[in-house]
Amino acid sequence: MNNTDKNRLQAFREERAELNEKTLNSGHLGIKRFFNMDANTYRDGALDSKTKELLGLVASSVLRCNDCIDYHLEQCAKTGSTKEEILDAMNVALIVGGSIVIPHLRRAVETIEMIEEEGLFQKQ
Amino acid sequence: MNNTDKNRLQAFREERAELNEKTLNSGHLGIKRFFNMDANTYRDGALDSKTKELLGLVASSVLRCNDCIDYHLEQCAKTGSTKEEILDAMNVALIVGGSIVIPHLRRAVETIEMIEEEGLFQKQ
Amino acid sequence: MNNTDKNRLQAFREERAELNEKTLNSGHLGIKRFFNMDANTYRDGALDSKTKELLGLVASSVLRCNDCIDYHLEQCAKTGSTKEEILDAMNVALIVGGSIVIPHLRRAVETIEMIEEEGLFQKQ
Amino acid sequence: MNNTDKNRLQAFREERAELNEKTLNSGHLGIKRFFNMDANTYRDGALDSKTKELLGLVASSVLRCNDCIDYHLEQCAKTGSTKEEILDAMNVALIVGGSIVIPHLRRAVETIEMIEEEGLFQKQ
Amino acid sequence: MNNTDKNRLQAFREERAELNEKTLNSGHLGIKRFFNMDANTYRDGALDSKTKELLGLVASSVLRCNDCIDYHLEQCAKTGSTKEEILDAMNVALIVGGSIVIPHLRRAVETIEMIEEEGLFQKQ
Amino acid sequence: MNNTDKNRLQAFREERAELNEKTLNSGHLGIKRFFNMDANTYRDGALDSKTKELLGLVASSVLRCNDCIDYHLEQCAKTGSTKEEILDAMNVALIVGGSIVIPHLRRAVETIEMIEEEGLFQKQ
Repeated sequence: MNNTDKNRLQAFREERAELNEKTLNSGHLGIKRFFNMDANTYRDGALDSKTKELLGLVASSVLRCNDCIDYHLEQCAKTGSTKEEILDAMNVALIVGGSIVIPHLRRAVETIEMIEEEGLFQKQ
Repeated sequence: MNNTDKNRLQAFREERAELNEKTLNSGHLGIKRFFNMDANTYRDGALDSKTKELLGLVASSVLRCNDCIDYHLEQCAKTGSTKEEILDAMNVALIVGGSIVIPHLRRAVETIEMIEEEGLFQKQ
Repeated sequence: MNNTDKNRLQAFREERAELNEKTLNSGHLGIKRFFNMDANTYRDGALDSKTKELLGLVASSVLRCNDCIDYHLEQCAKTGSTKEEILDAMNVALIVGGSIVIPHLRRAVETIEMIEEEGLFQKQ
Repeated sequence: MNNTDKNRLQAFREERAELNEKTLNSGHLGIKRFFNMDANTYRDGALDSKTKELLGLVASSVLRCNDCIDYHLEQCAKTGSTKEEILDAMNVALIVGGSIVIPHLRRAVETIEMIEEEGLFQKQ
Repeated sequence: MNNTDKNRLQAFREERAELNEKTLNSGHLGIKRFFNMDANTYRDGALDSKTKELLGLVASSVLRCNDCIDYHLEQCAKTGSTKEEILDAMNVALIVGGSIVIPHLRRAVETIEMIEEEGLFQKQ
Repeated sequence: MNNTDKNRLQAFREERAELNEKTLNSGHLGIKRFFNMDANTYRDGALDSKTKELLGLVASSVLRCNDCIDYHLEQCAKTGSTKEEILDAMNVALIVGGSIVIPHLRRAVETIEMIEEEGLFQKQ
């Protein structure tokens, strides 16, 4: 993996943070409330946060949104999923969503590699 | 819930079984292999069967397929998910997929009720 | 239009109301909050309610959800859209979403007829 | 296959014809033009009509529209595709679109059976 | 906002114009007719052009096409929508389409900023 | 067409090959099997490879995946489709999928130009 690849994930994080702030400051109360509700969704509830991040990852994968996949991959690592568990979840997305998911799976495999190099996966 | 509602789930199971058999007997090897691979996907692996059925449920919900949702709801019950866990998974689907998921959520709540009446949820 | 057709819209309203109540009473706070936020979205704001119901109709049409289309068609009539305006909005959905929208457009034309027979369109 | 099944395809044809006429008579010129353009799309061109109906079938299958699938299945039979060719096309849709396509594939297998009973497949 | 950001919108306009011309000159009459019909769709009719551009924006947002969103954002500004009205329309798309729309909303907020810097919003 | 454009297709091929290998080596048997089944799908069967690549192209176009479209465009050329046949197939995708397909059609026209410059279309 070269430096350009490393920068893809870092660039995404910075752009996401900057534009999220602009979006929240746009002055529309409904948008602000949606963002707040979205954040609450993945907190521990009847299902724990780890499982819900995997659900978010699979939902993002079958709906084919690279930014959402990258975000949830990082959250999956941080909430304790292993690489093997993440791949097993992505395989469910592949079967349900079909070969149209493959370009996103390929890219996810690259993101997982970046996340691992950054040491974001928890020690088992 | 009336008898007609009960029949919706039972009628789906019967039609699904009958047409699955016809589809498998249609003579196309690729289709047969896909069905086999699909069944294997939800077996215990890096993630257990219970978690993978929840992933299948959320994928089916954001892609908005009632038959797939009904199938996975039943599998979720059989693999040990509680009603509260299923609703927490459906809430992830609702946030990721938006209000367009609501008609499917409403219908899922009805299916959950049918499954409960049939005693398919495991005793805690 | 025969009585069976009239019953389709009426049956939808009754089922929708009954299942919405069950869904809201399912005990999941996130789902309850989403329903509340959804209702607020179409109230007068920078855009008036009439325009936002047309936006909801077009969004529902390109995402191809019959229940959502029927709901927004009724709301469009109640917030003052004429049949001609609704058809002009559906035409945008048809162009953006393609011929896959046609079955939903056909059904919408039938629903518009039902709504008109019920006298829901405002006198001009 | 029972009589109710036979009626599903026949009922669809009648409803489709009736509502297409209402839609065309709704007075919106853009809608009328779209319908005309849609019909022209499947006529012989650089690709023959038979191939284009198979393309329409696969597009309808991955976008998961039962009415569109039924329509194109009938057109495929009429333009000379065999059952084996139709299933081979549906298999492409299954791989590209994933298991979410399965309920539509099952239903298509039933429609193919109805079409065959009606004698719509060309003698080889 | 830096120069690179400004270039994103300008680069899109130039590429769009160049490739639209190539596509129209590709020699397929059906494609040419579709482009013509597409342009006609947003002209004043039962609904005015301003409203129809908002409909196109919301349709593009829930179907999640960045190029289409950028195009309609510019058209919305040119046909007289204010920033507040555009955000209110995007909020409908967010609720109907869910959090999967957020990356497109974030990017739209950036495009709106670019459009404003170019002075494309009409003086109120 | 400038050098940067030529590099887009070549860069995609290289990245695709590299990440496909990483994905296949990720250790998940289900993913490996899916990739194998995917490759088999487009081999000669009841339909020949040329027709099935056109089906894959249209499926990819209505589902709006640029990488999949580029891949199938190249396969279409290699299996004997002419530019005219490819455009006729893309026109079916445009009608079924609507104007939301246009950005992908524009890009496909550019890819076809690249493929032609590389001499991938078969001599007639």
